[in-house]
Amino acid sequence: MEVRPITVLAGGVGAARFLQGLLSVVPAEDVAIVGNVGDDLEVAGLHVSPDLDTVLYTLTGWIDEKRGWGVRGDSDRALERARSLGAEAWFWLGDLDIGLHMARMERLARGEPLSTATATLAERLGLRAQLLPVTDDRLRTMLQTPEGELDFQTYYVRRGHRDRVTGLRFDGARSAAPAPGVLEALREARVVIVSPSNPLISIGPILAVPGVREAIAGRGGPTVAVSPIVEGAALRGPAADMLRSLGHEASPVGVARLYAGLADSLVFDSRDAELAEAVREAGLRPHVTDTIMRNPEARRRLAAATLDAAGAAR
Amino acid sequence: MEVRPITVLAGGVGAARFLQGLLSVVPAEDVAIVGNVGDDLEVAGLHVSPDLDTVLYTLTGWIDEKRGWGVRGDSDRALERARSLGAEAWFWLGDLDIGLHMARMERLARGEPLSTATATLAERLGLRAQLLPVTDDRLRTMLQTPEGELDFQTYYVRRGHRDRVTGLRFDGARSAAPAPGVLEALREARVVIVSPSNPLISIGPILAVPGVREAIAGRGGPTVAVSPIVEGAALRGPAADMLRSLGHEASPVGVARLYAGLADSLVFDSRDAELAEAVREAGLRPHVTDTIMRNPEARRRLAAATLDAAGAAR
Repeated sequence: MEVRPITVLAGGVGAARFLQGLLSVVPAEDVAIVGNVGDDLEVAGLHVSPDLDTVLYTLTGWIDEKRGWGVRGDSDRALERARSLGAEAWFWLGDLDIGLHMARMERLARGEPLSTATATLAERLGLRAQLLPVTDDRLRTMLQTPEGELDFQTYYVRRGHRDRVTGLRFDGARSAAPAPGVLEALREARVVIVSPSNPLISIGPILAVPGVREAIAGRGGPTVAVSPIVEGAALRGPAADMLRSLGHEASPVGVARLYAGLADSLVFDSRDAELAEAVREAGLRPHVTDTIMRNPEARRRLAAATLDAAGAAR
Repeated sequence: MEVRPITVLAGGVGAARFLQGLLSVVPAEDVAIVGNVGDDLEVAGLHVSPDLDTVLYTLTGWIDEKRGWGVRGDSDRALERARSLGAEAWFWLGDLDIGLHMARMERLARGEPLSTATATLAERLGLRAQLLPVTDDRLRTMLQTPEGELDFQTYYVRRGHRDRVTGLRFDGARSAAPAPGVLEALREARVVIVSPSNPLISIGPILAVPGVREAIAGRGGPTVAVSPIVEGAALRGPAADMLRSLGHEASPVGVARLYAGLADSLVFDSRDAELAEAVREAGLRPHVTDTIMRNPEARRRLAAATLDAAGAAR
């Protein structure tokens, strides 16, 4: 299989919106996406891959744009019925979304790996970018909190990410193998982009798969990261609080330090322009632009600026 | 737990309709139902118990009466979506039905046994009869055919029960334990009724669980079976052909021989009245009545006649 020119490391909503911008400036056929599976969970026997699905739905126009996840206009007959029959069903699943999980699960249940099941879903939904789960093996992000260790979705959805995070663990990572094509996509792409996702819990699980970090660090070509933090806050989700509670700076500088040795450049918001020197000291070339992805045009501009940053690094 | 006065061994549609009649002549609180789980299957990770569900839906008014299974007026958004995404999804599941399977599966996934998960569903749907799966353990009806060994739903639904059945096996039966309450319900009920279900593949798996056959055979009180065969044919499903291909007579006499030593009486259709003597020779007291359950009144009359037969046996 030929390696595509651009590989993007992706978490959920932020990555999906960035990718939407990217696909409006380069052909989808030029892009491979390495997606996080640390958020995966089983809901009533169904394997759900929230980050992969958010990317898939966003890039194929099915996303519920307002929520950032799930299928636009989806009904919830099955879930409401399950609840009326005593299920907790705290992880919301619409009927069309359940259909996708059933299609995926049918394949997994007969022994197909997640990567080929994902490829089929992507192809059926008309996604021409390549979507690769970082691994076909079980990998689960676990968070230490004052309430004990929580799996990601219990922390994030069930408890509304209100717990202070004091530690992270990627269960299964050490024995996980990169899915077929992942290392090649990272090593041989002309450009690797780390999308504006939470570096700890969206990009972290990807980097925890043996071989992935090395493949990126050993690249000849440029690797550009995009900061999800603007003026000390995350646009969505608990990234800023989590960076702080785990001893990092909630700023582009903190992000730069996490990606030092991996990325050569960091794209971050012009509101944080005064941090350019500190980013450079952390070892990354600073690129300042508007990073707020409020609409398709803003997403397109951020993607274009990120590609420019990669070009400048050559 | 107090044992209820009437225990009914039940397969799917025929049993459900018989039970509907029974609950119109005795209080639901007087009835325990021991249900077949040999037809159970996993659909895309969801545990489905078709026979238990048919009984549950029929007795709580949710049944799609025309098909005999599934929820009346159910939509199929999830399933159609799964199919459009490449799933085979040959076992039809409506959205509300999926909700029930999710509620069940949520419980099974956290280690709850099928019997208590079933009890919760029954209670939530307002069923006041007790519905007991014969076992909480995995039990699967396997059929030998010229196409090889098929699991029940592959034979029945996927291949439309067109294959000649040359042998039966109840996978897992030998190591299965009766679910809590099953043996007591069979031993201590005043009356045990074997409903008009396929004796080989609906009642057979129930009898294959160690202890069940002995509990029925050792009863003091009456046990009455109802023949599902009328004039050499089954009203529904492949019972007649299967009886023949497995070397039995497709008649009340064949049914009587299968239940000899278990039931004392056999209720069968007046159109087969001339077989009364042969039924008696097989060891069962013959009771002739109209057994076609074409409407609620016919179901009620058959249930009443069956209770009369039990009374006559005392």
